[in-house]
Amino acid sequence: MRVLITGGGGFLGQKLARALGTTGQLRGQPITQLTLADLAAPAPLTLPFPATNTACNITDPADVQTLMAQPFDVIFHLAAIVSGQAEADFDLGLNVNLFGTLNLLQAARTHANAPVVVYASSIAAHGGEEPAHIVDGVELNPQTSYGTQKVMGELLLNDMTRRGMVDGRGLRLPTVTIRPGRANAAASSFMSSIFRDTLQGETSNCPVAPDYPIYHTAPRTVVANLIHAANLNCADFGTNRCINLPGRSDTVAQMIAAMTDVTGPDAENRITWHPDAAVQTIVKGWRGHCTPTKALALGFAQDASFADTVRWFLADDIAKAP
Amino acid sequence: MRVLITGGGGFLGQKLARALGTTGQLRGQPITQLTLADLAAPAPLTLPFPATNTACNITDPADVQTLMAQPFDVIFHLAAIVSGQAEADFDLGLNVNLFGTLNLLQAARTHANAPVVVYASSIAAHGGEEPAHIVDGVELNPQTSYGTQKVMGELLLNDMTRRGMVDGRGLRLPTVTIRPGRANAAASSFMSSIFRDTLQGETSNCPVAPDYPIYHTAPRTVVANLIHAANLNCADFGTNRCINLPGRSDTVAQMIAAMTDVTGPDAENRITWHPDAAVQTIVKGWRGHCTPTKALALGFAQDASFADTVRWFLADDIAKAP
Repeated sequence: MRVLITGGGGFLGQKLARALGTTGQLRGQPITQLTLADLAAPAPLTLPFPATNTACNITDPADVQTLMAQPFDVIFHLAAIVSGQAEADFDLGLNVNLFGTLNLLQAARTHANAPVVVYASSIAAHGGEEPAHIVDGVELNPQTSYGTQKVMGELLLNDMTRRGMVDGRGLRLPTVTIRPGRANAAASSFMSSIFRDTLQGETSNCPVAPDYPIYHTAPRTVVANLIHAANLNCADFGTNRCINLPGRSDTVAQMIAAMTDVTGPDAENRITWHPDAAVQTIVKGWRGHCTPTKALALGFAQDASFADTVRWFLADDIAKAP
Repeated sequence: MRVLITGGGGFLGQKLARALGTTGQLRGQPITQLTLADLAAPAPLTLPFPATNTACNITDPADVQTLMAQPFDVIFHLAAIVSGQAEADFDLGLNVNLFGTLNLLQAARTHANAPVVVYASSIAAHGGEEPAHIVDGVELNPQTSYGTQKVMGELLLNDMTRRGMVDGRGLRLPTVTIRPGRANAAASSFMSSIFRDTLQGETSNCPVAPDYPIYHTAPRTVVANLIHAANLNCADFGTNRCINLPGRSDTVAQMIAAMTDVTGPDAENRITWHPDAAVQTIVKGWRGHCTPTKALALGFAQDASFADTVRWFLADDIAKAP
């Protein structure tokens, strides 16, 4: 079982690699090779199977062909330009999010056996003329270039799966919080930093009102769901391989209250409340509520509480920090 | 008012050009230039304003930039690889239907004023896990590469419109019948040829059963709707610029009966009935019923009867044939 993770240097790619290291297998077969690819080669991890850390520019078809010269059985495609950056630079987002995905799928289709491709799409697929509460089967009307490019990738994945070129499974990730590391250019960055940074003694600004609802999921849950997507039988997905992932809907105020329940009031007192119109324009186009019927029927995991998320963050990302 | 038609050598592009020649104006302004572009330069038409017929390979960005070196006010983007051919050659379909559209929109965004872009999408956008009877707002799950590529173009058009790069209006065309000319590689080709060819004394095969329902529209109606789309105010469209166009639902048997009512039984008797599994696989993935609420509210025209379509075909395409 040869496995590739694109965006392997990102926090999700790193957590996914560690989780695969724990199970040692995928789709019932032992993992014999894990390749982590990113624009800069990711730092090596200690893993119980051979692992390679490779620099690859997915906007360059030749680079991708080199990366995939030896076929993979399972590909987790996480590499992306995030929402804020794709909004600031239309062509960069298009090159990485659409053409990078196309380059990857074009290389994957040359494999003798169609590889399983787990594709990270996003709740940013939703917006615009869609209902306030998302259900499966509504027409996608993304209101960011990031969301648009992700949905274009979904369509390509569906079509290339229908044609037998790949065996795709597309997951629309809720906002993943609490992200470790530093703030990034995602418009959703604050949805982690108001918890992550304040729990570590820093101040952090919340650019939206306390009653803003977030459809969110924890890193642990997302990693489990990425692996679950790879393990499922392709026939279970039906003709639409791209689904809304389970998450929880909480307002910012409810999430802060959960943090305070777990850790006391110090972190909450470090949050400032200065509205940011640019961030609001993007995130108010997203949806805070979703009923992911198909994903739940397929056995994907759903977060039980944001208090768990806070505990997992403290255990996974603070306790283990160097 | 400078106007461009891509796919200008096709039957719709030609009919649209003649219709613009009749009105002489668009968006309340006189047309001062009409450019018809196609892979081979279209034959000149007699028009009451300056017209240019240009060869342009829309898969070549430089060719498209040359075509659009002088800005256009309204662009009708009709050029495409049809369904059967895009199914037979994945890369060709992707190159023309997706990258051709991207090249056009990238050139259009360099215009000082965002041009109106009327984009021909298709009812082939629908299929798969969608309901049997299409309504507005259902998640698009195309079951052909043609439909997939058309929807990817819709998303791009929506996003570039949201960003102010173009002023897009995407129309999902029902099956256009009766098409003049010869059979083509569209899986829907028979939906014209069983009328067009038999009305001209030839035999023609129907590869589906008489009870197969078709959501169809006449060339006259489509041309009127393309022009209507260009004339509408952008604000009327909302955040989703891509809509299901009105059509009529009739079974093949009902359409044949309408033809017989208008012309007598000779044509009907020239139809043969040999099932074709390849065609059926494609067209049975389409939808035969659609309620296009938004388009009707926006004032788009709807066909009243297939008998009208037969009369219009005889008047427009047989009477005027050389």
